[in-house]
Amino acid sequence: MGTTKPHERLSDLLASELAQVNRLIAERMASEHAPRIPEVSAHLIDAGGKRLRPMLTLAAARLFGYDGPYHIHLAATVEFIHTATLLHDDVVDQSGQRRGRPTANLLWDNKSSVLVGDYLFARSFQLMVETGSLRVLDILSNASATIAEGEVLQLTASQSLATGESTYLQIVRGKTAALFAAATQSGAVIANAPEADIAALYTYGDALGISFQIVDDVLDYWGSNATGKNIGDDFRERKLTLPVIKAVAKADAEQRAFWARVIEKGDQRPGDLEHALDLLDRHRALDDTRAEALLWADRAKDALQGLPDHELRRVLRDIADFVVERVS
Amino acid sequence: MGTTKPHERLSDLLASELAQVNRLIAERMASEHAPRIPEVSAHLIDAGGKRLRPMLTLAAARLFGYDGPYHIHLAATVEFIHTATLLHDDVVDQSGQRRGRPTANLLWDNKSSVLVGDYLFARSFQLMVETGSLRVLDILSNASATIAEGEVLQLTASQSLATGESTYLQIVRGKTAALFAAATQSGAVIANAPEADIAALYTYGDALGISFQIVDDVLDYWGSNATGKNIGDDFRERKLTLPVIKAVAKADAEQRAFWARVIEKGDQRPGDLEHALDLLDRHRALDDTRAEALLWADRAKDALQGLPDHELRRVLRDIADFVVERVS
Repeated sequence: MGTTKPHERLSDLLASELAQVNRLIAERMASEHAPRIPEVSAHLIDAGGKRLRPMLTLAAARLFGYDGPYHIHLAATVEFIHTATLLHDDVVDQSGQRRGRPTANLLWDNKSSVLVGDYLFARSFQLMVETGSLRVLDILSNASATIAEGEVLQLTASQSLATGESTYLQIVRGKTAALFAAATQSGAVIANAPEADIAALYTYGDALGISFQIVDDVLDYWGSNATGKNIGDDFRERKLTLPVIKAVAKADAEQRAFWARVIEKGDQRPGDLEHALDLLDRHRALDDTRAEALLWADRAKDALQGLPDHELRRVLRDIADFVVERVS
Repeated sequence: MGTTKPHERLSDLLASELAQVNRLIAERMASEHAPRIPEVSAHLIDAGGKRLRPMLTLAAARLFGYDGPYHIHLAATVEFIHTATLLHDDVVDQSGQRRGRPTANLLWDNKSSVLVGDYLFARSFQLMVETGSLRVLDILSNASATIAEGEVLQLTASQSLATGESTYLQIVRGKTAALFAAATQSGAVIANAPEADIAALYTYGDALGISFQIVDDVLDYWGSNATGKNIGDDFRERKLTLPVIKAVAKADAEQRAFWARVIEKGDQRPGDLEHALDLLDRHRALDDTRAEALLWADRAKDALQGLPDHELRRVLRDIADFVVERVS
């Protein structure tokens, strides 16, 4: 038990519910008339993501003794929204690889990725409607708007050296943390948890999501291909993430000119990534970014303190440690 | 009055409500953090569509004496969903022009069109949640799924000569009629109309939408640039629409080979569009398609018969005539 990874423990504890979620997902991504839809969806959904977000929803509901059935619908909702955003992200980023496989936009085309994403998004709202909870609909429609807003903000702000840490945080809250927070919060809501606990689970999801994304951004300059990402993807896509923001803040004139050339102008030459890595190292930018990820993981854990004493609470705590373990 | 176009009469009758809808749209397409969003949205929303769909929602609600406030939210919802699908369609079709102006994907980029579409879609769900009506949410989330399904079906089926009239109808029901039907039905629902009348308004919207799309597909081979479309757009995009389906059904071997080359293989040469127009003419395909549009307009009008006697009912009747007037 001590050596089992926390997301595997979560998956064991929630095994029967996860099986129901997977059945519901398979059922709802079907389309009688357009077989392209389940083909494209299955390519991504079956590719073996960890189902972290839907597990968070299930765990939040189970923490308050809720035993169904609507946490299943909500977990499927969260996975559908996540999958829809991945499909659209891959079009936006013109990505070629995701979870170690060619992306849908490459295997089919951008059109299919856009439209199947729209379909999954609509399907997710149908699932929410079935829960009969307007509050859940409110939470998840707000999260959906915040996600899209974060993505658009990233589009316009991330190639400018003027973008600082607060804008970065806003982007991350949108593109990643909003869905984590909605996942945990809506699980608590469907379980009729006390308001203070609902708020605590929102705070947990928000901080966990921020930590998760910061770690991802560190690994982009530090990772192995265990993450399914190549080192320097963000660099090549000219995304100004926290490590670079920290290095830019400490840059001298010559270094600033380098960042302006490679990020703002997108004029990248052989050796530039190595030079960027060297600058990050020289300014301890990866270490400092890593420290922020740890800080957010601590905030996530702190948020759990007032919640009912339950094995799932301990696992949620370990999940926060696990997220940052990748950069420890 | 007799010479005023019916959509203008509708717009006069609903003037104060339309002003509220426009205010709500402007308010909700704003984004504090990502100014790109209102820029892109406004480009399309202010370009002067006729606001036909939101007016249908307002009219359906007013027909039963409803005076607010939630028909305003629903009308804005319907316009947001419509705008989101236009933004995504233009990416899918790689269009360069819409409503006589360059498309958003051309002025900004595909990324912005995808993400701003997602944002408007999420915003539309927030507006629905505010109505507090789960039934309305059910209707419009179903419509959203049907729209995406129709678009994906079009993607896979419309370049195959095996696609017949029933598949065409299914595509049209999805990509166009679903939102018309949801617009009128949800207006009646929010007004607490009797079930039979709600069903009648669904039937009206469905038939009107089908008629509208068939007319659009006729005008693509027949139109002037009053429609903002160039003759032959569907032909160049290799979309098998009803006129071509009818001509293919009557084609001899040589003509069939022609359609296979230009639509299925996409091998189009100078003079092909003229030859296609000649074949459509020879088989009376445009006349026959036009007759179907008239049939659906009649069905739309028939559906109105049991509804309360009201000036708006007469205008809705005239709207059905107006939709087909473009091909009369």
